[in-house]
Amino acid sequence: MCELLGMSANVPTDICFSFAGFLHRGGRTGPHRDGWGIAFYEQGGYRDFRDPSPSADSPIARLIRDYPIKSHVVISHIRQANVGNVRMANTHPFTREMWGRPWCYAHNGQLQGWGALALSFYRPVGDTDSEHAFCWLLGELRQRFAEPPAEPGPLWTTLHALCERLRGLGVCNLLFSDGVHLYAYCSTKLVHLTRRAPFGHAHLSDTEMSVDFREHTTLADVVSVMATEPLTANEDWTAMQPGELLVWRDGEIQARYRANEDGAQTSER
Amino acid sequence: MCELLGMSANVPTDICFSFAGFLHRGGRTGPHRDGWGIAFYEQGGYRDFRDPSPSADSPIARLIRDYPIKSHVVISHIRQANVGNVRMANTHPFTREMWGRPWCYAHNGQLQGWGALALSFYRPVGDTDSEHAFCWLLGELRQRFAEPPAEPGPLWTTLHALCERLRGLGVCNLLFSDGVHLYAYCSTKLVHLTRRAPFGHAHLSDTEMSVDFREHTTLADVVSVMATEPLTANEDWTAMQPGELLVWRDGEIQARYRANEDGAQTSER
Repeated sequence: MCELLGMSANVPTDICFSFAGFLHRGGRTGPHRDGWGIAFYEQGGYRDFRDPSPSADSPIARLIRDYPIKSHVVISHIRQANVGNVRMANTHPFTREMWGRPWCYAHNGQLQGWGALALSFYRPVGDTDSEHAFCWLLGELRQRFAEPPAEPGPLWTTLHALCERLRGLGVCNLLFSDGVHLYAYCSTKLVHLTRRAPFGHAHLSDTEMSVDFREHTTLADVVSVMATEPLTANEDWTAMQPGELLVWRDGEIQARYRANEDGAQTSER
Repeated sequence: MCELLGMSANVPTDICFSFAGFLHRGGRTGPHRDGWGIAFYEQGGYRDFRDPSPSADSPIARLIRDYPIKSHVVISHIRQANVGNVRMANTHPFTREMWGRPWCYAHNGQLQGWGALALSFYRPVGDTDSEHAFCWLLGELRQRFAEPPAEPGPLWTTLHALCERLRGLGVCNLLFSDGVHLYAYCSTKLVHLTRRAPFGHAHLSDTEMSVDFREHTTLADVVSVMATEPLTANEDWTAMQPGELLVWRDGEIQARYRANEDGAQTSER
């Protein structure tokens, strides 16, 4: 299994603090030695840093920890390989352009029977279940929506239904984004936390490091973080429910979709 | 105008030496202060590092200079903005997936009337002439070749014709790749150099730095470098001709297409 880290904020925010704890899980406090990656959306553009070597030893990971890149949306992943060997093409996050937007996608879990997910516009470069599922999901969206819909409800309902199909194939915790919205989908394990005024201290679980957010924020800042496991020991993280999709924008939950018992979806926008 | 740097090699090779000189042109020995990027193909995968700040001051550029990433194909670009402001989405190289391969593209020059190039599968994320032309070129290829042709001749002839159309719109020196072949297209200025046994010394033009390639190579290594201007002072660089497309693979020229006077193409494979 892998670990996920995401951030949605209403002001360009760096993720150095959370990433400092997270990268220890790649070979030090966690067993995820099979590569890592982090994607930043900046001024409508996208960049990612990926490395097939363990994050705990990676000079690129140390750069990211020490070099504040400010972003509204961040997605990061550290990998413990199950499907697909350890190499660059299998290193998350994956990215594809749709509607002139750079989409990115990171997956924690393992799917069965994923080869039967029919592809259309997008094809995997590597050989993971994760990238195949991403290509399938984006292709399905593009077939239904040649252009982004003016009102996002139908898009999000479709996205939730597609995620639910993936959950039918196995464990599928997802973070993905088009650069504006951050989509968090929980199959088994995903937690989140929102920091806003009054800001306080936070202490990392994975390494000896604290931060006083009052020194780094303004009263208007809203910064939400999602992760496979809580990253701090002294804050209240909220666990997502299996089948739940949260749509984040500017640090706030903009929509919530849940799987109910008979498989239908309920929205609480 | 911008500057281009490319490498094609028959063994995984790092580009630290050439990059050390090249990055000085991004704000020190050259005026190209509007961002830079470098793309590496590794084990069938792709990663790039891009930064909208000047390469001469960039901590990410220093990392790339000091951290040897070994690759068969590298493409790098430093930018002096003309079309599109300085931001991440306008920072080369650009990348798109086609046929399950990560294509990347970097452009030196400026086009007129590029908005009329009709797009199909791919759309730009930023607002440069360069990314629009890349989306157009890849879309044209994909419309003609739903799958990669078994024999590459028709693909390369098409690629050359598409590049020639771009040259009709302005200055268009290009480096692009699918991860196996490196395509170098010259509109006004592009030089290349092949290093093979017996290896010798090289001395950078842009900074005080020398290398003795005998200490870093085996007798079988073939490493070719392309750049807007020669990077070393003591080696013989070959200038490409306007309208010429070189197809590099494993450090060797695999095919050459030239524009002749009446506009037809001649191949010398």
